[in-house]
Amino acid sequence: MNHSMDNFTFSYQELYQFTNTILLNLGCSVNDASIASKVLLSADLRGIDSHGVARLSGYVRLWQANRINANPNIQKIHETPSTATIDGDAGLGLVVAPYAMQVAIDKAKQVGTGWVAVQNSNHFGIAGFHAMMALEHDMIGIAMTNASALVAPTFSIEKMLGTNPIAVAIPSKEEPPFVADFATTTAANGKLEILQRKNGDAPLGWVQDKDGHATSDANALKKEGALLPLGSDREHGSHKGYALGSIVDIFSAVLSGASYGPWAPPFPAYIAMPENMPGKGLGHFFGAMRIDAFRPADDFKRNMDQWITRFRNAKPMHENQKVLIPGDPEREMETHRLQNGIPLVASVVADLEQVGKQFGVPLK
Amino acid sequence: MNHSMDNFTFSYQELYQFTNTILLNLGCSVNDASIASKVLLSADLRGIDSHGVARLSGYVRLWQANRINANPNIQKIHETPSTATIDGDAGLGLVVAPYAMQVAIDKAKQVGTGWVAVQNSNHFGIAGFHAMMALEHDMIGIAMTNASALVAPTFSIEKMLGTNPIAVAIPSKEEPPFVADFATTTAANGKLEILQRKNGDAPLGWVQDKDGHATSDANALKKEGALLPLGSDREHGSHKGYALGSIVDIFSAVLSGASYGPWAPPFPAYIAMPENMPGKGLGHFFGAMRIDAFRPADDFKRNMDQWITRFRNAKPMHENQKVLIPGDPEREMETHRLQNGIPLVASVVADLEQVGKQFGVPLK
Repeated sequence: MNHSMDNFTFSYQELYQFTNTILLNLGCSVNDASIASKVLLSADLRGIDSHGVARLSGYVRLWQANRINANPNIQKIHETPSTATIDGDAGLGLVVAPYAMQVAIDKAKQVGTGWVAVQNSNHFGIAGFHAMMALEHDMIGIAMTNASALVAPTFSIEKMLGTNPIAVAIPSKEEPPFVADFATTTAANGKLEILQRKNGDAPLGWVQDKDGHATSDANALKKEGALLPLGSDREHGSHKGYALGSIVDIFSAVLSGASYGPWAPPFPAYIAMPENMPGKGLGHFFGAMRIDAFRPADDFKRNMDQWITRFRNAKPMHENQKVLIPGDPEREMETHRLQNGIPLVASVVADLEQVGKQFGVPLK
Repeated sequence: MNHSMDNFTFSYQELYQFTNTILLNLGCSVNDASIASKVLLSADLRGIDSHGVARLSGYVRLWQANRINANPNIQKIHETPSTATIDGDAGLGLVVAPYAMQVAIDKAKQVGTGWVAVQNSNHFGIAGFHAMMALEHDMIGIAMTNASALVAPTFSIEKMLGTNPIAVAIPSKEEPPFVADFATTTAANGKLEILQRKNGDAPLGWVQDKDGHATSDANALKKEGALLPLGSDREHGSHKGYALGSIVDIFSAVLSGASYGPWAPPFPAYIAMPENMPGKGLGHFFGAMRIDAFRPADDFKRNMDQWITRFRNAKPMHENQKVLIPGDPEREMETHRLQNGIPLVASVVADLEQVGKQFGVPLK
């Protein structure tokens, strides 16, 4: 660990080791602790800090509140040749999700595509990790999840949807793959949390106040405000972001038999579970499509290289700017952080040290 | 036909009859002319005027330019149990798309889900029509298409993507179905065309000028400007809209072997076809997922009723406002227009009369 003013830098191995040991202490199996640590830290590597090791203490508190089962009996409860529904048995989403994605991949091997809905799970880390599992099989991978309600639909002041991310990973040949992974809101909640820590203003269009008015108050959510769907307001297409978030909610939670909309279970363990939950736990949805179920994989991947190259070379707005391909910033961040370490803010370090103390595991 | 100042109103039957007769005159079979007329006019009924009968003359001009084949030999060129790739043989997208969606539905009957990529097609009307074909089978329907390039990726001033719509139709029990159908841009091009006719200003965030600056000039596209992806600018998530539009382009055109990105064939027949097209024609992508491939359809549909009711009753911003479910405005419009007729603007009426004259078919 190196530290400057308020920045502490850890190597990937240090954080992996710590996370893995904590999860083993919760009672996770060796395999489960390993895959969960890998999923969690992939967020830190890819620069999505809000979904990485910063959440470890949250998972621990859920476990302490008996909302997470460290030894889940993950089961297929329904299936057809191209589909399955899985009960995560309240396991770590970090474990349930890769299991479910693997089922989707196996189905795709058999009949061309595989589609898996998951109930009774919880927070699964970054969607992109799971979608990317398909790439090495020359498949397109899709992952989405519902989440606790922070987002108000267009024309509403009530929080009804989570930030409900969608990830789509598409293989290419020589070029790096296309990997889109985004919340269906204008801004991810993690970006808002960064502004909250800095006491910064949020751009108008990210959040609304309790009456539905535009506000730059990054703390609006704590004052009965809400995050806004992608598009920000009706005139700029927020009904599309609302529809997208709804589709993720329905595919992940209604199709699987999980708890949807405002009934999605909250991540913070101190928030009571909603009453009259219509389903079990959080829900996810995964898809895998074999490229050669549509056309020869090599032809497709050569075309993807051309697609990527053409878009990368699209005329930029400014000479010193370049047009990015979805996945570019995260991949560059991963290369950088594997080499230079993962910076954590002081509050996260303190939080992790606290978790370590509970189990007698030193952070360093 | 009734007309006031600049508004001419036709019954559905009048416009259906006219469209059908024109398509028969192009040489379409009785079945093809009928389904194509139904698809085209579903846009007028649902209030998406830019995609309805207003486009009939455009299809006729494509046919005259030998870019549309009135008697296509639509063929499966590749398949697995859950997938197919279809060559539309340059047929009307209005005919090719329902054919392909039916293949997806048939596959879903067999193995739970069906996924169909289409090459060598052209404009398919509204995506929602095709997605909704799944509903009566207790399936979720998905439809998307690429389109000629009007949209600049984030940080770019070059038009690289079409408005690339996505439609998702989800069945319910007593409530009307959830039907999302939206362009992956901040505003549909049709809305801009309405402003152009009125010489109105576009809200900032819909289009950019040739240098990539925000502009309210509704005619910016004709001056080397571009439509903006959903999100409008980087700060408000335009990279997400760009990713969505890209996913539609890749699923529809790269996966099928159609022509993608800036090489997508243009709808206006007077625009030359792009050089070095990497694939055949325009591409579409369809999906059908049997609900009972995941859980009993009746359980799901009861939950959807609860989902819809709960969201409809989400606390509104203003007392006199209500929160809408995707599909509500279009369904209400359809009811209204079936009863009260379909209003067409004078320029569209003149255009249709011109088409009628070419074939000796009176509009009235």
